[in-house]
Amino acid sequence: MMTGAQYKASLNDGRETYFEGERVPDVAAHPQLNASLDRIADCYDSFYDPAPGAVNAMMSIPRSGAELRDRIPLLHQADIVANTTYQSLMTVTTVAGRIGEQFPVYAERMRKWVAEMQAADTRITECITDAKGDRSLPPGKQTDPDAYTRVVERRDDGVVIRGAKLHITGASLSHELLTIPTKAMKPGEEDYAIACAVPVNAAGVKIVNTTYAPRHEDMRSFPISATHNFPEGFVIFDDVFVPNERIFLDGETKFAAVFAHSLGLWERLGGLAFLADEADELVGFAQLIAEANGLAKEGHIREKITEMIIHATLIRAALEAAIANCKIGEDGAAFPDELYTNAGKYHGAANYNLMCRHLHDIAGGSVLTAPGIADLENNEVGALVRKYMATGVGPAEDGEYRMRLFHAIRDLTADAYGGWKFVTNLQAGGGLYAQRIVTRKHYDMEAAKKKALKLAGLAPAEH
Amino acid sequence: MMTGAQYKASLNDGRETYFEGERVPDVAAHPQLNASLDRIADCYDSFYDPAPGAVNAMMSIPRSGAELRDRIPLLHQADIVANTTYQSLMTVTTVAGRIGEQFPVYAERMRKWVAEMQAADTRITECITDAKGDRSLPPGKQTDPDAYTRVVERRDDGVVIRGAKLHITGASLSHELLTIPTKAMKPGEEDYAIACAVPVNAAGVKIVNTTYAPRHEDMRSFPISATHNFPEGFVIFDDVFVPNERIFLDGETKFAAVFAHSLGLWERLGGLAFLADEADELVGFAQLIAEANGLAKEGHIREKITEMIIHATLIRAALEAAIANCKIGEDGAAFPDELYTNAGKYHGAANYNLMCRHLHDIAGGSVLTAPGIADLENNEVGALVRKYMATGVGPAEDGEYRMRLFHAIRDLTADAYGGWKFVTNLQAGGGLYAQRIVTRKHYDMEAAKKKALKLAGLAPAEH
Amino acid sequence: MMTGAQYKASLNDGRETYFEGERVPDVAAHPQLNASLDRIADCYDSFYDPAPGAVNAMMSIPRSGAELRDRIPLLHQADIVANTTYQSLMTVTTVAGRIGEQFPVYAERMRKWVAEMQAADTRITECITDAKGDRSLPPGKQTDPDAYTRVVERRDDGVVIRGAKLHITGASLSHELLTIPTKAMKPGEEDYAIACAVPVNAAGVKIVNTTYAPRHEDMRSFPISATHNFPEGFVIFDDVFVPNERIFLDGETKFAAVFAHSLGLWERLGGLAFLADEADELVGFAQLIAEANGLAKEGHIREKITEMIIHATLIRAALEAAIANCKIGEDGAAFPDELYTNAGKYHGAANYNLMCRHLHDIAGGSVLTAPGIADLENNEVGALVRKYMATGVGPAEDGEYRMRLFHAIRDLTADAYGGWKFVTNLQAGGGLYAQRIVTRKHYDMEAAKKKALKLAGLAPAEH
Amino acid sequence: MMTGAQYKASLNDGRETYFEGERVPDVAAHPQLNASLDRIADCYDSFYDPAPGAVNAMMSIPRSGAELRDRIPLLHQADIVANTTYQSLMTVTTVAGRIGEQFPVYAERMRKWVAEMQAADTRITECITDAKGDRSLPPGKQTDPDAYTRVVERRDDGVVIRGAKLHITGASLSHELLTIPTKAMKPGEEDYAIACAVPVNAAGVKIVNTTYAPRHEDMRSFPISATHNFPEGFVIFDDVFVPNERIFLDGETKFAAVFAHSLGLWERLGGLAFLADEADELVGFAQLIAEANGLAKEGHIREKITEMIIHATLIRAALEAAIANCKIGEDGAAFPDELYTNAGKYHGAANYNLMCRHLHDIAGGSVLTAPGIADLENNEVGALVRKYMATGVGPAEDGEYRMRLFHAIRDLTADAYGGWKFVTNLQAGGGLYAQRIVTRKHYDMEAAKKKALKLAGLAPAEH
Repeated sequence: MMTGAQYKASLNDGRETYFEGERVPDVAAHPQLNASLDRIADCYDSFYDPAPGAVNAMMSIPRSGAELRDRIPLLHQADIVANTTYQSLMTVTTVAGRIGEQFPVYAERMRKWVAEMQAADTRITECITDAKGDRSLPPGKQTDPDAYTRVVERRDDGVVIRGAKLHITGASLSHELLTIPTKAMKPGEEDYAIACAVPVNAAGVKIVNTTYAPRHEDMRSFPISATHNFPEGFVIFDDVFVPNERIFLDGETKFAAVFAHSLGLWERLGGLAFLADEADELVGFAQLIAEANGLAKEGHIREKITEMIIHATLIRAALEAAIANCKIGEDGAAFPDELYTNAGKYHGAANYNLMCRHLHDIAGGSVLTAPGIADLENNEVGALVRKYMATGVGPAEDGEYRMRLFHAIRDLTADAYGGWKFVTNLQAGGGLYAQRIVTRKHYDMEAAKKKALKLAGLAPAEH
Repeated sequence: MMTGAQYKASLNDGRETYFEGERVPDVAAHPQLNASLDRIADCYDSFYDPAPGAVNAMMSIPRSGAELRDRIPLLHQADIVANTTYQSLMTVTTVAGRIGEQFPVYAERMRKWVAEMQAADTRITECITDAKGDRSLPPGKQTDPDAYTRVVERRDDGVVIRGAKLHITGASLSHELLTIPTKAMKPGEEDYAIACAVPVNAAGVKIVNTTYAPRHEDMRSFPISATHNFPEGFVIFDDVFVPNERIFLDGETKFAAVFAHSLGLWERLGGLAFLADEADELVGFAQLIAEANGLAKEGHIREKITEMIIHATLIRAALEAAIANCKIGEDGAAFPDELYTNAGKYHGAANYNLMCRHLHDIAGGSVLTAPGIADLENNEVGALVRKYMATGVGPAEDGEYRMRLFHAIRDLTADAYGGWKFVTNLQAGGGLYAQRIVTRKHYDMEAAKKKALKLAGLAPAEH
Repeated sequence: MMTGAQYKASLNDGRETYFEGERVPDVAAHPQLNASLDRIADCYDSFYDPAPGAVNAMMSIPRSGAELRDRIPLLHQADIVANTTYQSLMTVTTVAGRIGEQFPVYAERMRKWVAEMQAADTRITECITDAKGDRSLPPGKQTDPDAYTRVVERRDDGVVIRGAKLHITGASLSHELLTIPTKAMKPGEEDYAIACAVPVNAAGVKIVNTTYAPRHEDMRSFPISATHNFPEGFVIFDDVFVPNERIFLDGETKFAAVFAHSLGLWERLGGLAFLADEADELVGFAQLIAEANGLAKEGHIREKITEMIIHATLIRAALEAAIANCKIGEDGAAFPDELYTNAGKYHGAANYNLMCRHLHDIAGGSVLTAPGIADLENNEVGALVRKYMATGVGPAEDGEYRMRLFHAIRDLTADAYGGWKFVTNLQAGGGLYAQRIVTRKHYDMEAAKKKALKLAGLAPAEH
Repeated sequence: MMTGAQYKASLNDGRETYFEGERVPDVAAHPQLNASLDRIADCYDSFYDPAPGAVNAMMSIPRSGAELRDRIPLLHQADIVANTTYQSLMTVTTVAGRIGEQFPVYAERMRKWVAEMQAADTRITECITDAKGDRSLPPGKQTDPDAYTRVVERRDDGVVIRGAKLHITGASLSHELLTIPTKAMKPGEEDYAIACAVPVNAAGVKIVNTTYAPRHEDMRSFPISATHNFPEGFVIFDDVFVPNERIFLDGETKFAAVFAHSLGLWERLGGLAFLADEADELVGFAQLIAEANGLAKEGHIREKITEMIIHATLIRAALEAAIANCKIGEDGAAFPDELYTNAGKYHGAANYNLMCRHLHDIAGGSVLTAPGIADLENNEVGALVRKYMATGVGPAEDGEYRMRLFHAIRDLTADAYGGWKFVTNLQAGGGLYAQRIVTRKHYDMEAAKKKALKLAGLAPAEH
């Protein structure tokens, strides 16, 4: 296993990373990109076990509903790339189980890769979303054939791939890119049916980063995003060679979607679990700021908080139901229920904006306009700001307490990080529509029709 | 145990029942009130066990989450008064556990009554909602002191009660009225803190009935409500004597609310479970009619059905979570989780109207205007109606199939029974607001606040 | 012009009308079908002017926004077939304006028919919705070619039509069937591009009726629907001859949709205006019952009523905007704005169920279970029912007042008439989807795109 | 009148302004605070008229619905402080009309001040929201008596005020602070019933600024907020002397709320008009990005855009109705209708988040992760980024077009400026609840009750 310090050092491996038009010589030293390095390193340290052959507890495979559930708080304390690492390993394990019979060679490679990753204690990101070009056209009909990642050359010892993968959170801060088809492929689209693992520092991999990390000098105004931020990677495969042992699918179009479906389940379970916790956090902020404002007993404020509570409870109910109804796969791994996972993720994502509206409505305009901590330190106005931000209610006797609550709410919901959350909660795991499709697919429609026919007096026996 | 025939005979016990201004001499013979008698009798027969001492499977106490869950399909096949019987027994068992230590005499009476009811295989309804008068005033401040049911006389051998209980579904078709305070009582309201069991045919009990049962000659146009209907009882206690052994609380205001809270849990669990099934039924109808109309593949129709699926899945997730997180009481009885039960019931009730809107939107105007089965039998127009109601799609090749689907949808959602469902789904278990209050009460607000404080950098250790 | 008495007599004209499997010999004498006859007759009498050549004020064409607006209260007092008569005349006038240049003969016939109808003071219904068969197939591909009304024979003096028109409210109580294509037609569908006027008593016209009129003996429990009800007609054209002068389109597929679009505008304006009034009525009931219950000052009750107020105000705003932005056609007739009309109608219809939910939530279960007026007249329980339905608040000092409010709410929103309103508010004018399509069509998308491009710094001048 | 250059120079007037803990010596030179100076200056120049006595067209009083409507596009091109200037003048004019009879001296001072402001072509901000302290307590019961702005000393020539006003957009960039009571005051709260005009550079005025202006070096990634940003002022009155001629109310508690109500109307009309335009802009972005993605014809995308269209249309309908129903005051000024203004503002604000959700859902994750323009200029990856951001659809043939659309959407809805808009759209004019209260107040409840009573058969004449 790696320590935090070893992790930081590991990033200096020749990777080709860009930011705002410039090549980044050392990602660990870049002021905007390294903001979360310490969090990742801490996470390494907290799981570190010097015993030889030790495996990170988060990187092992859960075998029961109880293990699935126990994993959740672990993952929530962990950083994003620790989460994507877990999801990647679970995805590959899921796929290996599903296609192992038809393709023992691929399954063997995947299992070996999982063991290798566990041994090396690497961080992995999932590269799924292609550039896609004109969304109304399939890969082969695009003006640019590279709009979907594809094999451009096949050699004895491997393949060369070309394309781009978008929205790869933390790509520049991890070691491996688990690259899989973005969707089902059809006969004739064999070159696009490519799944493989690519090291971040492989020749031809180029990552263009963006970040919502704050640029302010005084990070105290960003109590959450100062450390909770990750660069988003626009990952370009500019003719990258992938050796055979790291190819997990190549040309079998019929199975291209298995990867995305498997990943989708784990991404959405992760998303659902985070949404459940975030919903509680929003309730907590709403109640705290209502109390600090002296409004916690006001009828319409209570009603809004109750809405938020019901929302948080329904999300968690879906998570509970997904785990209570988990399935154990052939190889003993536990899979959450697809139906509850997707319906819950949908509901949480679809209503996230409304919950933030309630929070903003309850908190008031100081979410935006509360002065900063530095203002408290000014001789002329510091005491006055503290005075006028105080309300005399509980801990808000001191104006700083309320200011810091406002900063946190702004940072979480009404600033660059807030915007990132708005969009990411919607889009992670594939957008609202994707979750609708999967929910529909897993709902037992025939049973529902039978119930209705029976009620209508049209059930077979009665008709 | 009783057979169906014995049940029917048992109703001729001198009960004082009224309908549309007239005394009903024999409820079992009244054309509007007896429409569901056969259903109740069938339910008796299906559970009948001639063994001496046998207890109806529905009337026993569940001891685990699995037993709680197994009870649900049983209850769904059963009629409404079988359900209220189960809820009544569970309520009394719950209360006996909760107040047994302080009031062993009451607890003993309650347990004895439960055993008596199980032995006699009676049907029980829950009498909770008082007339209430001016809702902004407490019981003692009403113009009419009888607006809440109260003790008007205390004797050595019992008490005399006066008041009215509203919305008592099936009161005239059952044997016992479990009468409990509608809400918490305060010191000074001792006379209103009365809980007891009263036989339907006790002197002074007068029940005024209403019903949404269809009045049409041809019941084939009412495939559901022709049999799924129950008279609603406006139950008047016109100075009714209750002997001591049937008094479960008398004057202990502090404990008055325990009954309503206990009942609320079971009523809402029942409500939640029914809402889950009904949501599936609505999905089933939506899909069937979309198919019959040839519109099942239309994008906006599919989207609406997906909304209905997500709704049905969330309701069921709440039910699953309520059961997966059940608590086992001191006496071994299993109680569903209050938080999930109430949040789920709220969500199901609050969105029921919207789901019916989707169904109506998908089905089209023939929900209202489809001719009746009798029209098919007319020589002049029968064949024409059949021809024009046919669509040539699957079973809708014959117009009658689609007509009957429309009839069922109208009957279930857009007729008198539909109106009853609209209101009952909202009001059963106490209205939306009641469920919000209970949800709020059972939500772990302190935990949510801690999560928020931690995120804001204001958690004790960090501040 | 006709008097009410003349109108009643006019229905005995040999029309072939059916109800529940039987031919109806005299519609004016049928207990279920004639329930609204007096309302129609009263409406005749209220507009009656014995002057020769007088024209019903509602049947003239509005020439300005002010006239459009003034027409609204007139129409709201009037019965449904008076409304459909107005809409029919406006539709035909609109079409005559739109296709008059290409087809002067049709335009001439239409104008002549309008004058004839005005002179005879007839009642007209709009026959648009066909049986439609499999909705995924066009008229010509149906298993049954008659699924859409079509010309089956062309003669020198006219055509013979065959088909069925559904959901024709009040068809059996009016004189003329304005029969128009249900949608746009394509080349090859000439036989389906038929618009014409057919007398109700024409040979081959057969109407099968359904009704939501209450069947109860005591109509006092149905304060609204006892008089506000109309039979719905399933109108069959069983090879009906239409003479040339009553043919308004025959075979010109390109213009088939002009009728439906024109009718749609007037139907939706009517729908919007009714929704605006109904929304106010729902607010009124909510406030009245909250007051009668003593709950008008309760916070969450007030919040719900405020939601209903905002809803009512937005609907009316759309109506105001539609009229304030009306267009004057070439022939001087005033047309409401399509965009505001459709968006408003959509919003009103889409949220109608939610407003009823609020009303039910506010009112409580007695919406369903309040005893009837007859129960007040019973010697044994009448006084008790009156006592327990009283609340001592304002006019609810007498229980009867509150009972009658509950009856009205049930009748309007939670009974057969309520179900009819739920579905009709959605489906009238073509269902939610139809209103979305028209709104989209009339929205100035290019202007919106320009605004966005300008904001993005991508406007032509800046790019 | 002032030119833009004169305006810029005018800010160097000794004002005491702070930012991030430091005194700002020259606000016009501060990199974060001056970002919108050019916009304000341009606005000055565009209205500049060198004629002596000329008055800015935006600063005159509208006299009719048509003038009210014509003002709207003018205001939309103008910057925020031009808008608050207009609202301030309209507020003071409104108040002068409402209290002129009782307090001719105040009215005279106000009219004189309006004329003075028009002549000097100043920029004014509205200072209304106090610090408020514990919101559950009135001003006089606060721990800190300064929680609401108050008079601390009365002299012959004026008063000294103390307190803070929050959320004063652009305070540091304007000349005058129109300072008014935040709410109704009661007897005993005379010191809090103070309304006056204070120059920004008056002794004792201290402004602590915050800003959402981007801090990035490359402003091309912020196509909107780079210029559309204003510092928010936390305005402290640290014992500020106000001469008599600038006092508009002092101690007359009964009239304290007139200012806030008058301001509220104009703030909400402004808010409504902006929401209407913003709603169109969101539709425009949704359609443009859907087209660029090749998804404009996809069913579920079209449905979401239609939702956005209906939303935009309803907001505009409310604006149209508010203007069409405007009232002309005694002094000839035109006032928009309160009911439609508030209901429309409420609906627009309440659904703004949902509309942004639709936009994000349609656009996809690149809203967040699209690389910047600088990345296009990098030799290594520029061409690749351009290639993979292109879709081949219309103007998106070049990847830069789509990137810039994504930047604009992120900047407008999912970045710091987006967060500012989320909260400001809610809170401007007083929060959702404030708009509900005013809507309720102006709705004709008696008329609604009458309609309901009539329908219920309970109208006076009929009962």
